Order: sequence, then C-alpha cells, then structure tokens
Amino acid sequence: MAFLKVIPLEKALEVVDSLPLEPEMERISLEEALGRVLAEDTVSPIDVPPFNRATVDGYALRSEDTFMASESEPIRLKVVGEINAGDTPEIELNPGEAVYVSTGAPLPKNADAVVQFEDVDRKGNEVLIYKPAYPGLGVMKAGTDIPRGKGILKRGTRLTFKETALLSAVGLSRVKVFRKPRVAVISTGNELVLPGEELKPGRIYDINGRAITDAVRELGGEAVFLGIARDDRESLRTLVEKGIECCDIVILSGGASGGIRDLTSSIIEELGEVKVHGIAIQPGKPTIIGLIDGKPVFGLPGYPTSCLTNFTLLVAPLLRRLIGRESEVRKVKKRLAHKVFSVKGRRQFLPVRIEGDKAVPILKGSGAVTSFVDADGFIEVPENVEILEAGEEVEVTLFG
Amino acid sequence: MAFLKVIPLEKALEVVDSLPLEPEMERISLEEALGRVLAEDTVSPIDVPPFNRATVDGYALRSEDTFMASESEPIRLKVVGEINAGDTPEIELNPGEAVYVSTGAPLPKNADAVVQFEDVDRKGNEVLIYKPAYPGLGVMKAGTDIPRGKGILKRGTRLTFKETALLSAVGLSRVKVFRKPRVAVISTGNELVLPGEELKPGRIYDINGRAITDAVRELGGEAVFLGIARDDRESLRTLVEKGIECCDIVILSGGASGGIRDLTSSIIEELGEVKVHGIAIQPGKPTIIGLIDGKPVFGLPGYPTSCLTNFTLLVAPLLRRLIGRESEVRKVKKRLAHKVFSVKGRRQFLPVRIEGDKAVPILKGSGAVTSFVDADGFIEVPENVEILEAGEEVEVTLFG
Repeated sequence: MAFLKVIPLEKALEVVDSLPLEPEMERISLEEALGRVLAEDTVSPIDVPPFNRATVDGYALRSEDTFMASESEPIRLKVVGEINAGDTPEIELNPGEAVYVSTGAPLPKNADAVVQFEDVDRKGNEVLIYKPAYPGLGVMKAGTDIPRGKGILKRGTRLTFKETALLSAVGLSRVKVFRKPRVAVISTGNELVLPGEELKPGRIYDINGRAITDAVRELGGEAVFLGIARDDRESLRTLVEKGIECCDIVILSGGASGGIRDLTSSIIEELGEVKVHGIAIQPGKPTIIGLIDGKPVFGLPGYPTSCLTNFTLLVAPLLRRLIGRESEVRKVKKRLAHKVFSVKGRRQFLPVRIEGDKAVPILKGSGAVTSFVDADGFIEVPENVEILEAGEEVEVTLFG
Repeated sequence: MAFLKVIPLEKALEVVDSLPLEPEMERISLEEALGRVLAEDTVSPIDVPPFNRATVDGYALRSEDTFMASESEPIRLKVVGEINAGDTPEIELNPGEAVYVSTGAPLPKNADAVVQFEDVDRKGNEVLIYKPAYPGLGVMKAGTDIPRGKGILKRGTRLTFKETALLSAVGLSRVKVFRKPRVAVISTGNELVLPGEELKPGRIYDINGRAITDAVRELGGEAVFLGIARDDRESLRTLVEKGIECCDIVILSGGASGGIRDLTSSIIEELGEVKVHGIAIQPGKPTIIGLIDGKPVFGLPGYPTSCLTNFTLLVAPLLRRLIGRESEVRKVKKRLAHKVFSVKGRRQFLPVRIEGDKAVPILKGSGAVTSFVDADGFIEVPENVEILEAGEEVEVTLFG
C-alpha cells in the first residue's frame, strides 16, 4: 500500500489510520495526573461518605426516642459521650441515650438522626429535645454521595482539577492514563537558523520547529525538537535516525527547496518505506508519509500555514487517537465573512479567523508567517468550486 | 484594616486587592514558554522576511529588461549564476543578466522580479523571457510580512503554539513572562486521610488539597501540596510556617470542625495578622484572610463546593493579577433552567452546571462531593431575593 504519486486526501487518511501504532497506557500518581487522559472507566472503590456522617454540630440519637417530644413535654436523653470528626465511633446507643457529635463525625451505632445543638437544651448530663426528629435528620448516609462500585469517570476523560479532586475523594492515588506519544521534530533547510543565533544574509529564523513542537505539546504529546537538518543526505539521515531512536513518531518540515523533499523520501526509502508521496490538496502536494522500524515519519510542507494545515489534517488525528482524545470535536460551523475565489480543479484549504459566528478568510498567501498566526483554522474549498459567497455556511477545522 | 467580624464580600475583595503582592517577571527560554503569559509588549527586532525573497523557482532579473518581451520576440538574458535558499547573495545583476534562484532564495542585487521556470526557456547560457515581468513578481519583499519594530504581541498574552512560533519567526530566543506565583496548599482536619492511605473508620479522603493544588496549576501558578494538618496547634503551625517559608501564598482548607477555624485564626494572629474573619455570604462565613511576613494566608471552608466557591471569589483574582491574566473574562450570562429558592437575608452562591444557554442549578447541598464535580460555576442570589424563576437571566461565574 505505497502510493508513489499524488493521491486524494481520503487515501492518505486511510494510510494514517492503518499505521501500526496503538495507544499505550501507564499508571501514574494522582499528583501528576492533571491534564492527562484517563485510559479506563473508573469506579469508586468506596462509599462516599464511607459512614453515616453528622452534617451539623449537635446530638446523635435514636429518632424513635423523640417521636413523643413537644415544646411543653421535652424528651430527656442521657448524654453518654462525644464523637468528633476523625474519631473512631466505638459508642453504641441504648434507648434513651444520646451522644454529642461535631460536624463530620461518624454516628454512633443505633443512632439515626442528629439534632442541632441550637435546637436543644443541655442540662448537665442530659439533653432536652423539644420536637420529634425524623430518621436521617442531620445525617448524610454512607454512600449517598457516591455509592461504592459506581462508575465515576469514563475512559477518555481529560482530567481537570475537578476530576483529580473526585479521584482523591474516592481514595485513588494512582490512575491509568494514556501514555504521551513521543514525537521528534526536525526542521530542514539550509536557509534556517534558530532564534538567538546570528541571522546571516539569506537566512531566516525557523518557525515550523517551534510551531510543531508546541502544537504536539498542546495536544498532550511529548515533543523533542531535534534541530535543523541541512540540505545534505548526511545531516538529514542522522537526525531522522535519531528521531526513530528516541521517539514514536518523526515529523519533518520541509525547507522552501524542492530538493529536500526528494532527499527526505530517498532517506525514508533507504531506512524503511515511503507510503505516501504527495496529496492532491493545496497546500499539501509535497507531503510525505513513511514508515521506519514501524514508526511513522511525516514530511510536511515548509510554509508555516501549509505545514500547520497538513499537521492538523494528518498528524493531529493520529496523536489524538494515541492519547485517547479521538472523540474531540475540532470542527465548527460558521458563515463566511466575505467572498473568496478558488482555482477550479484544485481542492484547496484556506486559513480563516473566527469572529463570533463568522469565518474571516485570511488571504495573505501561505508564505506569510502572520497568516497562520492570525488564523484559527481552515476551510475546504472543493475541486469543483470556484467561488464561495459571503454568508455561505462553512465548516472550520481548528488548527492543532 | 483588620475585620474581626463578618464583613460584606466587597470589603473582603478590597482587602485582597490591597494585599502587598506585585506581579514578578522573569526571562525564560522560548523552549519553555508555551502556556506562559507575556510580561511585556513585544516588538519584532527584524524584518520578516529579512531580505527580498523568491517565492517561486525561476529566474531573478531586472524587470525593466523584460518590458519589451513578447511571444514572438522573446528577450534573451545571460544566466550569470545560481542562488539557492540559504545562500549568501553575492551576485550583482548587470543589464541583460539573470540568475537562477530557488524558492526561498535571496534575490541578487538589482533584481526586482522572479519569472517561474515553467514560463521560460533555457538555452545553454541564456534564458528566453516571453512576456514582461512587473517589479515584485515572484518576490516577497523584505519586511512585508512583519516590518522591523512592529508590535507583535501584547503584555498579558497567553502563549499558545501560534505565539511561540511567531516569537521564533522574529528570532527571539528568550521572552519576559510573569513568574508563576508559588502557592502552598494545606488541608486541615483529624478526619482526613490521603488517597492511597488506609481508610480507618470515621475517616474520609481529602478532596480540597487536590482540588486547590490542581486549580492553582490550571490557573498558571505553581502549587505545593504540604499535606494534612491535624486539629492541634503544633501540627497546624508547623505547616503554616513551612508554607510561608516556601511560597508566596498559603491556602488552608478547613476540616468540618469549627475548632480548626479558631485555631487557624489564632496561629495567624500569633505569626502575623488576621485581616478578615468571616464573610457575609453563604458559603463563606468561616473564610479567613491573614498576612504573615507580607504573605497572604487564606483559610477556606471545608466543604468542597464551599471551598472552591471561595477560592474562585477571593484567591483566583489575586492569582490572575500576579500572572497577568486579570482581564480574562470568567463570567457568562445564561438562563436559569428551573426555579430556585433561597433564604431571605442571605447572600447566597449556588452551584450551577452550564448546558448550552441554560444554567442548571445543582441542589445536592454543599456537603456532596459530586455537587462541585457536576458544577461549572455558581450564580449569586442577592440577600433580598427569595425566588429566582426559571428562564431568568443569571450571570455564572466559572470555577477556578
């Protein structure tokens, strides 16, 4: 299933789908779980609360003892002890007895209600109850918040502070999450230098290395930027091999020159197999997908907007699959803010900015850095369409 | 300005505003900048592109040489060299000369246009041009994407991959960002145990420690969970002192017992000053704000939803101020999904879940863990209001 000529996007997506990578899981401490994605359905191993718990400060008692109580004829109960939050409840109530409890304390055996201390009178060893207490008054019963065995979080849930707190509430100190895929990022091109380095004549600062590295991190992957490969076989091959060694996936972004594309595909061919060599979309013609030692290698176009568009179309879905975030919706419907023209016979992806319910096309050309900084995503203009009118409904795919 | 009795929320917010903490800045490498907040307006130190750059593969030439070109009478130019992307352009064009350039290459001196190689014929040492080229054809001029000195990112911008890529494009390898405030988090209560520990009778797992620690991290702060303080002066004082030593802010969340509140305030009094001791809102009466060695200490209520509500009202705005994210909107207008009752004379905050344009009140009671897990934020019911009707517009403050 290798395509050595330009193929439709759908075929390329099939190739990505069939790449031999499966989501992996790891068990980590709850302390490090924030932002990770749960890899299993989680069930509460305990009742929350784990015991019948006083919700007020007052007197725990047997409600049946109070059924005859009234303002004029209060019931007198003997106070046989005190239980505070955190105490182990060893007291057992006999008829006619009560125990002072603080909020959060476990109820003594046989008690089924807590009467607030504001509603009673304490007389030495005794407490006077002026009205009947019903079973359950002032009590949160064991398991009423979360019963033991109840499913609390689904596989695929991204853990925010609310979910980590919930996991803490049920006592789980370790959780099974999707392992972060490791992605090696390589920029290619003789003209590139890294920020902080001197900008000699004819050189430009690298953009795609930073963009792809940080886009992978935002998606929840681990990214390693390996630096810039020059337009020579040795330099490129060394970095590709390094990427295959350290990571699960390698992403190269092309320099401006067409020569690098041939070099990249020839090196992949040497070390593994080229699966896709060009996709029939604009931008995307120079995109390469290969496989070395069972690890995918993506060669993306050099222009930042083109690079990011192809990353979003091809690499991001794979990363989401590996991280367990497949079901995430990354498309929104908007209305086109103004007319755009396309070239008939070309399936084109145009960067747009979202403003309220509008999609504003950004027409600076893919060479401009600012076009991808200003854009939130892109829309597709099908092959047979030359004009999209203002106000037309379009589907915006968000970058990343 | 110490309030030793219950005060209105507005007064408490004034106290928070007047806390002697100022945003601090640090310069970090672009490699670590993802997710951080920019502390200065950023200006491009260079032109992007830095030179007149070929946008196609073809022949760089002096456009005026081609003005007379036609299909029948092509102009012949002498090819005097080749410039590739990354090359230093040392060639200077004389009239009648052209240079082969690849996409991304700098133009030679005196060239002002590039004609695509598909549109010309190469005959040995010469290239035949069949139609006039206009100045700027096939060229991206220096600074047209981003001119040197142009403001590119504002102070307060949270850096996503698009912004880090933009900073890379202009060659900035280090950026000034807001320093992450360090927050110590302490849970208090004899009844609490940590996840993974044995749940003895009468004990419950700590929730607030995890919730606050991770909420601070989501906000962009650095959180250190110091563990659980028992209901005794020694245990609590030790952890508070540790928090003051390691961090900029200390947050305690109360156990269920009222005793801890007094203990907390007495320890703050001993080590520093209590500024607020109770706020006239529900939940929030037990909330304490103190100051030790110029560092704020917050004592929040014990019930998770109450704790989180007060964290959102009082601590989150302070953290946002320190992180430079003050202007972030955390309130959304929704319609109430069903009627809710409140108690007259009480200013109440009710947890709600957002569903589309509806706010659905969550009425499980603040003791339930699940009420804060299900909620997205809260609405305020003013003192003089007893009933909010279904369909009424409400303002939801999002948690965190």
